Amino acid sequence: MPEQNRQYIFASRPVGYPKESDFNLVSSPMPTPGDGEVLIRTCYLSVDPYMRGRMRKSKSYAASLEIGDVVLGGTVGQVVNSKHPDFHEGDIVKSYLGWQEYGVAAGNSIQKVDPSLAPISTALGVLGMPGLTAYFGLLETGQLEDGEHVLVSGAAGAVGSTVGQIAKIKGCRVVGVAGTDEKINHVVNDLGFDDAFNYNSVTDYDAKLQALCSDGVDVYFDNTGGPVTDAVFLNINLRGRMVICGQISQYNLQEPDLGPRLLWQLITKRARVEGMLVSDFAERHEDGLRQMGEWVRAGKLKYKETITEGLENAASAFISMLKGGNIGKQLVKVSEPE
Amino acid sequence: MPEQNRQYIFASRPVGYPKESDFNLVSSPMPTPGDGEVLIRTCYLSVDPYMRGRMRKSKSYAASLEIGDVVLGGTVGQVVNSKHPDFHEGDIVKSYLGWQEYGVAAGNSIQKVDPSLAPISTALGVLGMPGLTAYFGLLETGQLEDGEHVLVSGAAGAVGSTVGQIAKIKGCRVVGVAGTDEKINHVVNDLGFDDAFNYNSVTDYDAKLQALCSDGVDVYFDNTGGPVTDAVFLNINLRGRMVICGQISQYNLQEPDLGPRLLWQLITKRARVEGMLVSDFAERHEDGLRQMGEWVRAGKLKYKETITEGLENAASAFISMLKGGNIGKQLVKVSEPE
Repeated sequence: MPEQNRQYIFASRPVGYPKESDFNLVSSPMPTPGDGEVLIRTCYLSVDPYMRGRMRKSKSYAASLEIGDVVLGGTVGQVVNSKHPDFHEGDIVKSYLGWQEYGVAAGNSIQKVDPSLAPISTALGVLGMPGLTAYFGLLETGQLEDGEHVLVSGAAGAVGSTVGQIAKIKGCRVVGVAGTDEKINHVVNDLGFDDAFNYNSVTDYDAKLQALCSDGVDVYFDNTGGPVTDAVFLNINLRGRMVICGQISQYNLQEPDLGPRLLWQLITKRARVEGMLVSDFAERHEDGLRQMGEWVRAGKLKYKETITEGLENAASAFISMLKGGNIGKQLVKVSEPE
Repeated sequence: MPEQNRQYIFASRPVGYPKESDFNLVSSPMPTPGDGEVLIRTCYLSVDPYMRGRMRKSKSYAASLEIGDVVLGGTVGQVVNSKHPDFHEGDIVKSYLGWQEYGVAAGNSIQKVDPSLAPISTALGVLGMPGLTAYFGLLETGQLEDGEHVLVSGAAGAVGSTVGQIAKIKGCRVVGVAGTDEKINHVVNDLGFDDAFNYNSVTDYDAKLQALCSDGVDVYFDNTGGPVTDAVFLNINLRGRMVICGQISQYNLQEPDLGPRLLWQLITKRARVEGMLVSDFAERHEDGLRQMGEWVRAGKLKYKETITEGLENAASAFISMLKGGNIGKQLVKVSEPE
């Protein structure tokens, strides 16, 4: 084990899109676990859209990162030294150590991951926070019913790709929206979406939705916001539901974007727009993971990962993800489990 | 009884705010009731914001008015000739005859009004469609809980004034928004709202809401839309509900207004925005009216009416109402019951 740890420190609050210089890679002394704690070597770290919100000073749903903090985020790693009776050297665990090679966590804050069930990286993706977000957002917040018409933005991302496949499992017709032809090809041909379009190749989103969702939209699962979401207001069905999971098109703006005021459409349609966070369903995560694991093992739920190698590339991977550079779950591989 | 009837005919689809020339006052032969029908002399007719939507060619929730139609709307009148066994000359009835002095209606499409319970005009206001809209919108769509913090736009109108008083009955703190100081004075001093502000005297609605709703907003009942509603997105509480009942600020625009895209606030707050129509609660209207009637008779629920005299002034009353000229329910008095 090295004597020094490497960590990414939050150096300055981004203005607009984050820059690599907003993060500092530093060396620091290797931490040592106290009673009830474990020392973990990071294997994979997760970069997710919500982290951009934590980099603001303002009141996001998660507490703000402070300048000088290790950049936060979910990790999967391997226990290298345990002072907690439930964990042993070599155990694979999910924790929230952020962007660093090693970290100490309280034993009661981490969960074991069984590497015999699925690749351990899935604990940060389809069998982790993004997968559960898709599951509870679509089925609970969205109150999806079998056979409905579903539209998903951010369709090729970790959450959106899972949403679309769960909707297909439920017998729905699913249309996706994403930002490259490669992503469109992926969700239709690899994941089984019924149709999809590249929002960068279309100007009239209303007309496109009328064409691809000719029976309207019963459930819209929104990861992006912006003009595509505006067009959904014009195409939502009677008693339709718009699940606001993410608004990545807005996160890097200094002032909110302007768009048409369309709330009157909700009267006509008696439709609902509702925000959701996966943490609101915490007491049901185990149930969700059991179902998602069954679907993954049965081959009904596929997943793709975009893996960037090396802790030193975490900042660029994060920035790339915010700009849509990933297909499926964006991860950073920090070390190989032994 | 005169030989001729007078009717207001829909003459042209308004562009922007309606003009009086969009409506034609004409004489036509007095109608005669067939079997199962009654001839009714209009006492009061109602002008309501939703009618503006019916004047569009497009798909509003109500069928479009066609050029040449009598302008539609709720009425209270007196039976002058009945060919239906349940109705007799002199009965006061609620019907949907629109802007005319006399009309024929099927007996199964009208309801008796008991003049001993409340003034008959209330059947078009607090004990009619606007009152039920307030009742079901606040309690069902808004899922109001006792003691919550409520904000109402269009606070001095027929719906908003009722919403605020029901919320007070439920032990809530209520703040209103309206467009004149006279209206602000009315809702606070006559109706018991805790506070209110004139949106025409304020520029920073966010700051105003932070000041007047310092504990945030649990339920926002929206009759107007526009910049005040934008500011509510910034002040809505965790699991808050925004009931979209009307968007009168938008109805007379030729293109939707632009405003900031703020849906990301719904994620932070896990808040919900939902449109409602009173007709969705039709099978429970009797229950609602029973409760509202009790509150009115107990003096817990007050109402005000702005009454314009004469059928010939229906168009100007309608236009005035769209511009906020009324306090409480805007009615047109067409004749005195005998």
